[in-house]
Amino acid sequence: MTSKNKIPSSAKCVFKGKIFEVWQWEQKMYDGSVEIFERIKRPNTGQVIAVVGDKILVQTEEQPDQQQPFPSIPGGRCNENENPLDAAKRELLEETGYVSKDWGLWKEVDPVSKIEWTISTYIARNCTFEKAPNIDAGEKINTRLVDFEEFMEIATEDPLFWSPEIVLDLLRLCLEPKKKEEFRKLLFG
Amino acid sequence: MTSKNKIPSSAKCVFKGKIFEVWQWEQKMYDGSVEIFERIKRPNTGQVIAVVGDKILVQTEEQPDQQQPFPSIPGGRCNENENPLDAAKRELLEETGYVSKDWGLWKEVDPVSKIEWTISTYIARNCTFEKAPNIDAGEKINTRLVDFEEFMEIATEDPLFWSPEIVLDLLRLCLEPKKKEEFRKLLFG
Repeated sequence: MTSKNKIPSSAKCVFKGKIFEVWQWEQKMYDGSVEIFERIKRPNTGQVIAVVGDKILVQTEEQPDQQQPFPSIPGGRCNENENPLDAAKRELLEETGYVSKDWGLWKEVDPVSKIEWTISTYIARNCTFEKAPNIDAGEKINTRLVDFEEFMEIATEDPLFWSPEIVLDLLRLCLEPKKKEEFRKLLFG
Repeated sequence: MTSKNKIPSSAKCVFKGKIFEVWQWEQKMYDGSVEIFERIKRPNTGQVIAVVGDKILVQTEEQPDQQQPFPSIPGGRCNENENPLDAAKRELLEETGYVSKDWGLWKEVDPVSKIEWTISTYIARNCTFEKAPNIDAGEKINTRLVDFEEFMEIATEDPLFWSPEIVLDLLRLCLEPKKKEEFRKLLFG
């Protein structure tokens, strides 16, 4: 996907932090004048709607800088040189202990203007439990299995659901019963 | 509103760009270890659903770093020490030439985790044309008036609509006819 927030090739990185980079370039304006434009770059995100039998894997997650637990799906930032599919596979295993041999890309979203950042959401069918999760020191994660309708309700109605960029698509499905049924089939076959 | 992405008071600004600031702090993890956490701060946004008679004001906007024109509502970044209501009033006048004496806050959203940034969307009723717009060199803006249903359609169905953070709320209204009717009354009385 060509990001709508792609940083121009003429831009220069003026700051590189732990997560965020700041890029600037000289942008010609409509009257011929020139201004410094600025964008942020951050690692892309890979996340997954993981299907286990006739259920979907949902997490309750805590992070040390968040005030309260929140529901989420497995996922996280890509490591350096890691593509979003590999990141989603790694995070699924680390956070839940599950693996799958049946992965497909569902949605790619660039959620914020002025930030070069793509979130890829995959569907992993027929997940099986491989080993105990390996949660890092900056997370507390509990995993549970919910049915399709409960998943749709958590994702579209809980204001704390952590992946707002897929809520819009899920809510659109709720407006069109036929597409919602197609989505259900995509998940469960 | 207390931002869910509020930067802790212990954080330090490590970079200040044209728009974005990068802040870092030492975060205690669940195992007692300490890591550097990082957030971005950017100026808040004020924007407005502007009502003119029985119509709503919609813009077609071009920006020099965007590939194609996109539909939007009037609004923009707060200047230093400007509150979002004053920013929305200023942007409405600059971008469209319209003013209103009847403003109300509709929604406040913090759209992105790890970024301290609040978008306030106001409703301005009974707008009247005051003077010619004063568009800056970094924008091309054409204004038109559309009816309620057309506005809802542009906002919820055009993938280029510029304010994704209100799309979710507007789409929720489409799911509940009673709330949609209440919203129509909120706009037109």
